[in-house]
Amino acid sequence: MSDEISGEVGARSASPRRRAGRGSGTVRPALSTAQYRSLQHRFPPTPVVSEDELESIHNASLRVLEELGIDVLHEGARAIMKQAGADVKDGSERVRFDRNLILETIKTCPSEFTLHGRNPERNIRIGGKNLAFAQVASPPNCSDMQGGRRAGNQKDFRNLVKLAQRYDIIHCTGGYPVEPVDIHASVRHLECLRDIATLTDKPFHVYSLGKERNQDGIEIARIARGISHEQLEREPSLFSIINSNSPRKLDIPMMQGIIEMSSRNQIIMLTPFTLAGAMAPVTIAGAVVQQNAEALAGIAFTQMVRKGAPVVYGGFTSNVDMKTGAPAFGTPEYMKAVLLGGQLCRKYGVPYRTSNVNAANTVDAQAAYESVFSLWALTQGGGNFIMHSAGWLEGGLTASFEKFILDCDLLQMVAEFLTPLDTSEPALALDAIGSVEPGGHYFGTAHTLERFETAFYSPLISDWRNFETWQEAGSPTAYQKANAIWQKELAAYERPPMDPAIAEELEAFVAKRTEEGGAPTDF
Amino acid sequence: MSDEISGEVGARSASPRRRAGRGSGTVRPALSTAQYRSLQHRFPPTPVVSEDELESIHNASLRVLEELGIDVLHEGARAIMKQAGADVKDGSERVRFDRNLILETIKTCPSEFTLHGRNPERNIRIGGKNLAFAQVASPPNCSDMQGGRRAGNQKDFRNLVKLAQRYDIIHCTGGYPVEPVDIHASVRHLECLRDIATLTDKPFHVYSLGKERNQDGIEIARIARGISHEQLEREPSLFSIINSNSPRKLDIPMMQGIIEMSSRNQIIMLTPFTLAGAMAPVTIAGAVVQQNAEALAGIAFTQMVRKGAPVVYGGFTSNVDMKTGAPAFGTPEYMKAVLLGGQLCRKYGVPYRTSNVNAANTVDAQAAYESVFSLWALTQGGGNFIMHSAGWLEGGLTASFEKFILDCDLLQMVAEFLTPLDTSEPALALDAIGSVEPGGHYFGTAHTLERFETAFYSPLISDWRNFETWQEAGSPTAYQKANAIWQKELAAYERPPMDPAIAEELEAFVAKRTEEGGAPTDF
Repeated sequence: MSDEISGEVGARSASPRRRAGRGSGTVRPALSTAQYRSLQHRFPPTPVVSEDELESIHNASLRVLEELGIDVLHEGARAIMKQAGADVKDGSERVRFDRNLILETIKTCPSEFTLHGRNPERNIRIGGKNLAFAQVASPPNCSDMQGGRRAGNQKDFRNLVKLAQRYDIIHCTGGYPVEPVDIHASVRHLECLRDIATLTDKPFHVYSLGKERNQDGIEIARIARGISHEQLEREPSLFSIINSNSPRKLDIPMMQGIIEMSSRNQIIMLTPFTLAGAMAPVTIAGAVVQQNAEALAGIAFTQMVRKGAPVVYGGFTSNVDMKTGAPAFGTPEYMKAVLLGGQLCRKYGVPYRTSNVNAANTVDAQAAYESVFSLWALTQGGGNFIMHSAGWLEGGLTASFEKFILDCDLLQMVAEFLTPLDTSEPALALDAIGSVEPGGHYFGTAHTLERFETAFYSPLISDWRNFETWQEAGSPTAYQKANAIWQKELAAYERPPMDPAIAEELEAFVAKRTEEGGAPTDF
Repeated sequence: MSDEISGEVGARSASPRRRAGRGSGTVRPALSTAQYRSLQHRFPPTPVVSEDELESIHNASLRVLEELGIDVLHEGARAIMKQAGADVKDGSERVRFDRNLILETIKTCPSEFTLHGRNPERNIRIGGKNLAFAQVASPPNCSDMQGGRRAGNQKDFRNLVKLAQRYDIIHCTGGYPVEPVDIHASVRHLECLRDIATLTDKPFHVYSLGKERNQDGIEIARIARGISHEQLEREPSLFSIINSNSPRKLDIPMMQGIIEMSSRNQIIMLTPFTLAGAMAPVTIAGAVVQQNAEALAGIAFTQMVRKGAPVVYGGFTSNVDMKTGAPAFGTPEYMKAVLLGGQLCRKYGVPYRTSNVNAANTVDAQAAYESVFSLWALTQGGGNFIMHSAGWLEGGLTASFEKFILDCDLLQMVAEFLTPLDTSEPALALDAIGSVEPGGHYFGTAHTLERFETAFYSPLISDWRNFETWQEAGSPTAYQKANAIWQKELAAYERPPMDPAIAEELEAFVAKRTEEGGAPTDF
């Protein structure tokens, strides 16, 4: 007998297909459970280059820092760098770094640390074998199937934050899941961080857009946790992504952000955004050389500000469509860059931040395959902290409610893939195999009945009904199923408990800072 | 400055997004080129269990063969097994195998060999680090966006075969891409194999559904290549998938298939279809124990028939939806089973066959993510020969024209991911980095201009246009784009050249065998 699902085979009574059938039942959504709160890599990371080749890339990055240098626009930062031994010349923004200065300085980076949430069960370990997922951050637009694409606003912002609270696989928000442009920029950070701190009990991010915002974010994180300044300084409770202005430029708000955050022992994720062919060389190796130079400079700076300050190496190298200049994500080139970034981080002993990305305009097959290619690379590359894990669409220009649900399902599948395969005696099932006659089936065996409820991952979206049943149900696509799920989850949202005194203190702080005019908007 | 695509960031002149833009040009489909004809794994395979755990699974499989045995329905096969030393009792179909018999017998399996096509440029290396993709095989239905879902028929069969010829990433057909039920079963194999042998110049598969079909298939492969029986026997030119009737049963056509194929040095791919929870234990480890026992028995039998006969270990363990009994594919459980199968194959030194599968009912996000999860597992698991690589939908019940195109794109991306990352001095791009001032861009540099045409993979489907341009173009989904592509590719199909004398001989053979009544249909 030949092949699995042949029509000829299908006519045979012994056909596995016949026996197993295609289900006609409904699909049950998995419950939000705590099993996804703390994930660990289990597989040896996949290297994309040899140790020698890695050394070549490392050395080329050090030559960029030594010979070409980086423009540092913040005068105070240049002074700190000069003090640390960097080559800073009066009247010039260009800073060059001796390779030994860089390599010695980054030695104080911690390889693993905890990002604290106001609920200690939401604390996130970063680095080592740990894997954590942050929600999409920063799109100017959002969209859902009914409402279409629209500019970010407070209502959608809040709804996306609430959805982030619904899934344990989302370990934290990664910024504003959509930019609420209907809130004035001077107070947006106050409104948004107060919302995130109250609507979720998970850790969060502050944008480095002027030191006042960093300071306000740090205070909101402290108040939400109900702790002293001293405890906050011992326990990192906030993170900030710093994107260098590639190529080779670190601007004033970035340096202010590092100074504010690192000096208080809060987390910096230094992420050059190096699109090969645009703001980085067209070769992936060259783009990563530049990424690595910029990352090393920024990471070293965090340690010049405060030895041992928690810092993460961010990789964001992808390619552009060379015909149009459009950025591409989840491509083979992106995958290689992600694996390579992982090799560099392991060499330096610093945690690795990467992303779950795609460039699709709708929640179709492209959105899914570019995302899973991204997840493939970041899982095999040993990514520790994954930005834009759920909801990112259109190369980051839109936060999609349906893509958020789809991504939660994908992330949960990755988490299940990373659970150990049980090879205990009962799992090997010799008795069960002996209890079923040749040509029989296992549906009713004790071995099956004891396990069937939890044996397999139960997906949120995947529709495994047979074609006829699926067609009778209106032929729903994954996009449509995700649409129904986010609405249901949003309706089921419950605000996590918060001490009323803390809530009051938070409101009072936001009111005071709002009254003071918030933060400058001339960034 | 914080995060990649923030609205706040978007307002800055130094915004990478601004600089790179979102393209507004049209998407160019990649050309079919010969660069995908011969693929190699480059990454160390990912183990899902430790060496000790692997040994436990191996030992459990051997205990199944020793203590429980397999039912072998073909009397002649039992005689061959008895002669080789297996425990065969008169009047019983049950055959038990001493572990040493199995391990000694499979030692003659070749670890690598060539499957020959009538065009030598289409020869396929199987085993070792080689990776080859076969088209979807055996669905009873097919579908496309305009025509909907319909029973398999000769016209669709031929169109799918023609599409298989259009893409070099499709190394061969894997059977009938759809079952043409409008051709009488007695002559279907003659019509179909003659079509495949003439419409493509790639190697192909024969179904083991009675020895006459194997014999006819072997003769068609020989005539198409224009070679002698002796040369055919030196050069494997045909393969056949054998699915055991799990659990623990090998039926008459299977054994006939192995006898016909292996005795003539043609390729057997022994593939138990072990759905955990249905015809195999509900635990993945237990299902693979059973898979491995059945595979080892069948593989050993090929070597009892002819030492050194080319044989491939097929893994097809997945899980079912325990609520409905519906088979599931591309799941975390499937991924683990694929990695585990790879570990077993490397232990035994035999090539590994696995599959690109999904259980979606349409070409949506689910179809894509289940497929890419499959590709992830089979790539990291070191799969050598991939069945159902392109076109499979609905758990194998439908061959989709659009999914075929989507899969070709996915396979090409996997192939690109497997190309070495260039870390030569020019690729490290130090000069280019030095030539661009901080904050500048690389669009016009010599380094970019020299490389931009071939720097990155150009996908068939991915739509990287900006949202507005994409919307003006009618908001095409990946499904719709794939629909346009297959029609264009089919229109562009050209029959590969064939010596007229060979074509005539093929026709004459098919006519003669048809006149004789074809093959029995009482299988």
